[in-house]
Amino acid sequence: MAQFHCLTFLTDYGLEDAFVAVCHAVARQIAPELHITDITHLVPLGDIRRGAVVLAQAVPYFPPAVHVAVVDPGVGTARRGVAVEAGGALFVGPDNGLLSVAVAAAGGAARAVSLTNRALWRDTTAATFHGRDIFMPVAARLAAGLPLDEAGDPVEVASLVTLPRPEYRVTGDGADVEVVTVDGFGNAQLSLPGAEAPRAGLIPGASVTLAGDGVAITVPFVTTFGEVAAGEALCYRDSGDWVAIAVAGGDAARLLSLRPGMRISLTVT
Amino acid sequence: MAQFHCLTFLTDYGLEDAFVAVCHAVARQIAPELHITDITHLVPLGDIRRGAVVLAQAVPYFPPAVHVAVVDPGVGTARRGVAVEAGGALFVGPDNGLLSVAVAAAGGAARAVSLTNRALWRDTTAATFHGRDIFMPVAARLAAGLPLDEAGDPVEVASLVTLPRPEYRVTGDGADVEVVTVDGFGNAQLSLPGAEAPRAGLIPGASVTLAGDGVAITVPFVTTFGEVAAGEALCYRDSGDWVAIAVAGGDAARLLSLRPGMRISLTVT
Amino acid sequence: MAQFHCLTFLTDYGLEDAFVAVCHAVARQIAPELHITDITHLVPLGDIRRGAVVLAQAVPYFPPAVHVAVVDPGVGTARRGVAVEAGGALFVGPDNGLLSVAVAAAGGAARAVSLTNRALWRDTTAATFHGRDIFMPVAARLAAGLPLDEAGDPVEVASLVTLPRPEYRVTGDGADVEVVTVDGFGNAQLSLPGAEAPRAGLIPGASVTLAGDGVAITVPFVTTFGEVAAGEALCYRDSGDWVAIAVAGGDAARLLSLRPGMRISLTVT
Repeated sequence: MAQFHCLTFLTDYGLEDAFVAVCHAVARQIAPELHITDITHLVPLGDIRRGAVVLAQAVPYFPPAVHVAVVDPGVGTARRGVAVEAGGALFVGPDNGLLSVAVAAAGGAARAVSLTNRALWRDTTAATFHGRDIFMPVAARLAAGLPLDEAGDPVEVASLVTLPRPEYRVTGDGADVEVVTVDGFGNAQLSLPGAEAPRAGLIPGASVTLAGDGVAITVPFVTTFGEVAAGEALCYRDSGDWVAIAVAGGDAARLLSLRPGMRISLTVT
Repeated sequence: MAQFHCLTFLTDYGLEDAFVAVCHAVARQIAPELHITDITHLVPLGDIRRGAVVLAQAVPYFPPAVHVAVVDPGVGTARRGVAVEAGGALFVGPDNGLLSVAVAAAGGAARAVSLTNRALWRDTTAATFHGRDIFMPVAARLAAGLPLDEAGDPVEVASLVTLPRPEYRVTGDGADVEVVTVDGFGNAQLSLPGAEAPRAGLIPGASVTLAGDGVAITVPFVTTFGEVAAGEALCYRDSGDWVAIAVAGGDAARLLSLRPGMRISLTVT
Repeated sequence: MAQFHCLTFLTDYGLEDAFVAVCHAVARQIAPELHITDITHLVPLGDIRRGAVVLAQAVPYFPPAVHVAVVDPGVGTARRGVAVEAGGALFVGPDNGLLSVAVAAAGGAARAVSLTNRALWRDTTAATFHGRDIFMPVAARLAAGLPLDEAGDPVEVASLVTLPRPEYRVTGDGADVEVVTVDGFGNAQLSLPGAEAPRAGLIPGASVTLAGDGVAITVPFVTTFGEVAAGEALCYRDSGDWVAIAVAGGDAARLLSLRPGMRISLTVT
């Protein structure tokens, strides 16, 4: 496989320690010309679903790259480390579902290997820091042109762990959806693709009643936050083109008690 | 205009999401050799004044660059996107005053365009993410050498939105000033330039009484924090050479109830 | 001395202001090809010991580099600024102990200079921002090949300020140790090297009783967090190969009241 010039990095390592910098250093010792872009390192500790969604949101904007993601509560246990080829890119990380949303969005896994080639790892490998000792050194070598099948044993792509796909159903007068994720501003992305919004009656000017566990509010469907007053809730197609709920200048998740995984009925009136 | 090798980026996007990384990716797909320096992405959400001041604090230390700033509560509404030439640099962002403090500090706007050339935007443009879809792709092309006047229609520089300039007045025994901004440590920068301090009697060794809404305290005017005990308040010329208020090892804004925009009388005794 | 291609940067400047970006800009104006890796800028304000430990944790993973660290409550007072050569790398910062743990880990100081050559500083030097005005411009010139002895007057390496070395003692049935530092997750690194753990009886399968000021708990000694239930405390060899205390999915320092400097007796049962 050809070289990749770009590597992305997403973790739950936080920004208070040297963990992220150490991983950069390990990668650049192997591939000095590699450009590393940090996606985020503030995924809540161990929140695989949140990490998976943020990775999937970012990947489409990058050229073909090696995407390293590490949210890995099972580090050091029997879970596999994998490298997955999908849509011309490579995804490297634990096989716990973290990569699965981005891989699916990239067209699905074409090939995958379990990272069993210890010759590519750091000489000493800590049981709690595979990001530094396995994922990053293997990813840097893949970026530098190492063929995927030299990273380890092939695995059936059907055996890769995948997160359950958030569901939605367009109904006669709206849609039944799930909250997929909440961003740093408290905006709640729903499982309804923007392209499906018109079929559900969600068009600019519509009113939408949200009903769910502890939630009952009617909000306008708008194009921009500027169309409502500060502090007012709204429904819109977000920048990734998913239907989403926000509060202008406020935190919708907190104000409306929206949580990832929660089911909501949208009724257009 | 010649190429710029450096692009800076300042927003209120936060660090928990992929927003910043996606903007980097968009820029680097257009200008792969471009060096991007993040100034900060922790401007409080929608706080145009704070963003404007931090941008102005940073710009003088950069070589000629394209400075992209996005604190944009009106995204998607009628407010213009602009590119402004000032002091040999280019400033790209919403025309809401965010760029105005840095532009003024750079010698004022020489030329400006409204970013109306849609051929430079991303193919699909979200109403809520002009950073990704308009500002960054246009800025990357300007950095790569696109002439400013190809980015859109010329606008009168006098028509650009500017923030009110913080005022100060040197009095017989001190100065009347405003709090301009509060940094991450709680240090409060005032509207009095350091070069004016001696004329106001603010010289090392002086005592200064601060009087304002709920504030009444006398503090020493010093050169370094080390001259006072931990927890003690002080007045000094800060690293940008503005007169400022701090508490050694503490948060002056919180401890002394200092807020941006607040008026304070300084009396030297 | 040959050129360095890599400069690392660690401070307590935070991420809300332009301080870090301004230092990057200053360095790159002097050495445009220099690659700068930020280690962290979230060292608690003025916490020299925490900064020293994080720097020492990071350095071993980098190629020979110029390491700039600024946690400097005495900025502008009589404390020296220094550049220290150790283990083929250069360390630049205040002479307050911040560099000492990394320098010792790199084999000890071979040479050192006080940064007295004002020709290398920025033209105007703020008393409160030596990172921008002294440390970064000098470090960038050293990275670009300036001989160390041109940065200032030589100083005796024995005169450099060093932090007290955390102590440990292997006892008949365990070890007496100190808490060295607490990372962003609340994991507490102890002063006992991993290589000494077996001699203290700390081997997988052992039970360890921790006793200290307000602490009394028995935890398993394990290899990975996955071996205990969520919320359970554990003792292990961490990724830097120090013995450490953690809580699976939780904050050990908070839950067990562990603080840096605290003495703990480990008894294996």
